[in-house]
Amino acid sequence: MPPPFPSRAEIEADQLEQLRALVTELFPANAFYTRKLEDCGVTFDVASLADFSRRFPFTTKAELVADQAAHPPFGSNLTYPLAAYTRFHQTSGTTGAPLRWLDTPESWAWLRELWTRVFTAAGVTAADRVCFAFSFGPFLGFWMAFESAQQLGCLCLPTGGMSSAARLRLLLDNGVTTLCCTPTYALRLGEVAREEGLDLGRSRVRRILVAGEPGGSLPAVRARIESLWPDARVRDHHGMTEVGPVTYECPAQPGVLHVMESGHYAEVIAPATGQPVSPGETGELVLTPLGRVASPVLRYRTGDLVRPAAVRAACVCGTHELALAGGILGRTDDMVIVRGVNVHPAAVEEILRAAGGVAEYQVTVTTRGPLAELALAIEPAADAGDATALARKIGGALETALGLRIPVHTVAAGSLPRFELKARRWHRAGK
Amino acid sequence: MPPPFPSRAEIEADQLEQLRALVTELFPANAFYTRKLEDCGVTFDVASLADFSRRFPFTTKAELVADQAAHPPFGSNLTYPLAAYTRFHQTSGTTGAPLRWLDTPESWAWLRELWTRVFTAAGVTAADRVCFAFSFGPFLGFWMAFESAQQLGCLCLPTGGMSSAARLRLLLDNGVTTLCCTPTYALRLGEVAREEGLDLGRSRVRRILVAGEPGGSLPAVRARIESLWPDARVRDHHGMTEVGPVTYECPAQPGVLHVMESGHYAEVIAPATGQPVSPGETGELVLTPLGRVASPVLRYRTGDLVRPAAVRAACVCGTHELALAGGILGRTDDMVIVRGVNVHPAAVEEILRAAGGVAEYQVTVTTRGPLAELALAIEPAADAGDATALARKIGGALETALGLRIPVHTVAAGSLPRFELKARRWHRAGK
Repeated sequence: MPPPFPSRAEIEADQLEQLRALVTELFPANAFYTRKLEDCGVTFDVASLADFSRRFPFTTKAELVADQAAHPPFGSNLTYPLAAYTRFHQTSGTTGAPLRWLDTPESWAWLRELWTRVFTAAGVTAADRVCFAFSFGPFLGFWMAFESAQQLGCLCLPTGGMSSAARLRLLLDNGVTTLCCTPTYALRLGEVAREEGLDLGRSRVRRILVAGEPGGSLPAVRARIESLWPDARVRDHHGMTEVGPVTYECPAQPGVLHVMESGHYAEVIAPATGQPVSPGETGELVLTPLGRVASPVLRYRTGDLVRPAAVRAACVCGTHELALAGGILGRTDDMVIVRGVNVHPAAVEEILRAAGGVAEYQVTVTTRGPLAELALAIEPAADAGDATALARKIGGALETALGLRIPVHTVAAGSLPRFELKARRWHRAGK
Repeated sequence: MPPPFPSRAEIEADQLEQLRALVTELFPANAFYTRKLEDCGVTFDVASLADFSRRFPFTTKAELVADQAAHPPFGSNLTYPLAAYTRFHQTSGTTGAPLRWLDTPESWAWLRELWTRVFTAAGVTAADRVCFAFSFGPFLGFWMAFESAQQLGCLCLPTGGMSSAARLRLLLDNGVTTLCCTPTYALRLGEVAREEGLDLGRSRVRRILVAGEPGGSLPAVRARIESLWPDARVRDHHGMTEVGPVTYECPAQPGVLHVMESGHYAEVIAPATGQPVSPGETGELVLTPLGRVASPVLRYRTGDLVRPAAVRAACVCGTHELALAGGILGRTDDMVIVRGVNVHPAAVEEILRAAGGVAEYQVTVTTRGPLAELALAIEPAADAGDATALARKIGGALETALGLRIPVHTVAAGSLPRFELKARRWHRAGK
């Protein structure tokens, strides 16, 4: 029998214990946090989780970037001597300068254990054959997933540097049961299978574990992926380089992400005030990974917008961990205000995928002073039919959902860029 | 003080013990070897290493390919149930159908330990920052090197999916001390650095660990790499998917490879007769990896041509392990006979690199019945000067070394393919 789910009180007692051990370890070993906290007169004791939230300052990405610029190349947020670190990663730099991130074997092992929870929640066992369709570069991406799957005893098939067609053949020929990739790339593989005449109906893929983009929790994106991959179910996950793996998808409620509170102390705040939001309200996720002592962040402003469940009772799946309805709803830094309407890229994606018929798209944001305007280029799917009608339909769907008229035009098949890592579909033009 | 080097008697006693354990484990668990050895009436006891060489049959790649075709997808050469395997790799298929190769965590760990010997022989320690310039695909390539470096405590920088220019910047910005790549790709990176105006003089790279091609033991290839990378020394290594890591470069004699006889029982045979060659003579390397029980090969015909040292005494570096002068001299299956002259691709590479001025090249082999002719296309390096003079010089060098007139023509800069994995410079035309 599996162990019972810990209660809220047990979760929080464990978090407090881990947090105290973490904070103690940082002083005076970690130059960045020693300086930062001394500068604002914070003492290193933690009376309670509430005390921590009240007294300790946030950490922002901008601070870490500035620290790495001042102390190149790795910055001063290192708790141990440089020689203790074995893993190098860096962020993709989608929101400014890339951050370098180092881990020791201990910090890395701690992160890997969290990823193992993502796999087990998705039902992955040692009997599974797991294909990793990503490039194994310096982005943290699925590196940890790869090692977790090894640890779980899965047969792991790395496919760095391969073409999409070659990946599909490898996946079909070797009876892959689980695919790990971004939501965009799961769509792309489905599209290439059609182009190549490969029948995904004969694939043994039963689950597609997606991360790196909000798509995995958007119902229309899930539905589109699942229509291309018969018998496969999408399982979402989210994490980031600075904090590691954060959530897994609720086994009972598709599109709900649970924060792994065994590893993270989580807060949800109003971005403008920094004050906690009420349950059921949307806010920014703030995380303190509790066991990544070598490369810590305390109260990290993730920039991810989430909506915690209104009632913090046990979930139907049994866990008492924080539930985020709809997954990651967007980012504080990518919202565009168009004629007074807050437009989130994830909302546009959801509207497009629900309308159907779109293989790929690109959004151009033109800003003149404080005013922003959007325009959409749409690449019709092979089975989309009349292109003009499709553009009209998408325009109508956007108007219905957002109350905005947004110009939509179609472009030739294959003319828009495809993505293996995070998709970059939003472009800013002019000033 | 490091442990003393084992004597020949100690090496061979240890090999016999490991070999007996291996052979015992294969019966009846491993269907492929149980069938193969029963078919030729071999009993599973091993009286001595000589007895093993005398009685046990060779294993060839063709047999393994046929076995995987008969028992798709993974063949019957598996000692344990499929669920025990966690690593999937496949050969690059340069010599026919690709082979799939699975490992269990135990077999993989055994291989990783061998790679650790390659690093320590090259002087790599936990203080090193090691950049892996390869694509982390299904080819075994440097995967094991990556994990060995982790285990040694090096800071590891994976660069799958990156452009050569981005890899160079990452390597310079992060103070990389050790680069792992193919010899061809080390040349390519040097070439790109010049194109991009990046000064490798400010790189901290002190050693370049090469594998995957014979180049690392060819003096002219080494010299060319070392001229592009000031302060770096080339260290060769060789291995293959089917047998794992095999050799490390002698710390005392550049261009000499030592077989890691702690892990491999090695024989050198005349390809035509299968009989052992005398020390100092060139023959085919036959290997039995002693600890990869889950995915074994017994007396595997590697196809690699080597020349063991004439006298099997202790090397000047101290080891009593087999020394291969000049590294891998070529392959039994890629030699071309031109007007009665045996031409090995490695010999052509060495002649070209020694002549200098060549950025990239391509060889076309035209065969009419039993007769083969060669033609060379040469892409001059940026600093090569007059192209016609270069082609004449190369033609002269080939004639001097091989006694053959081979047509050489120059092509435009950047027009020949570049390679990250094994280079494919020899093409066969016609019949």
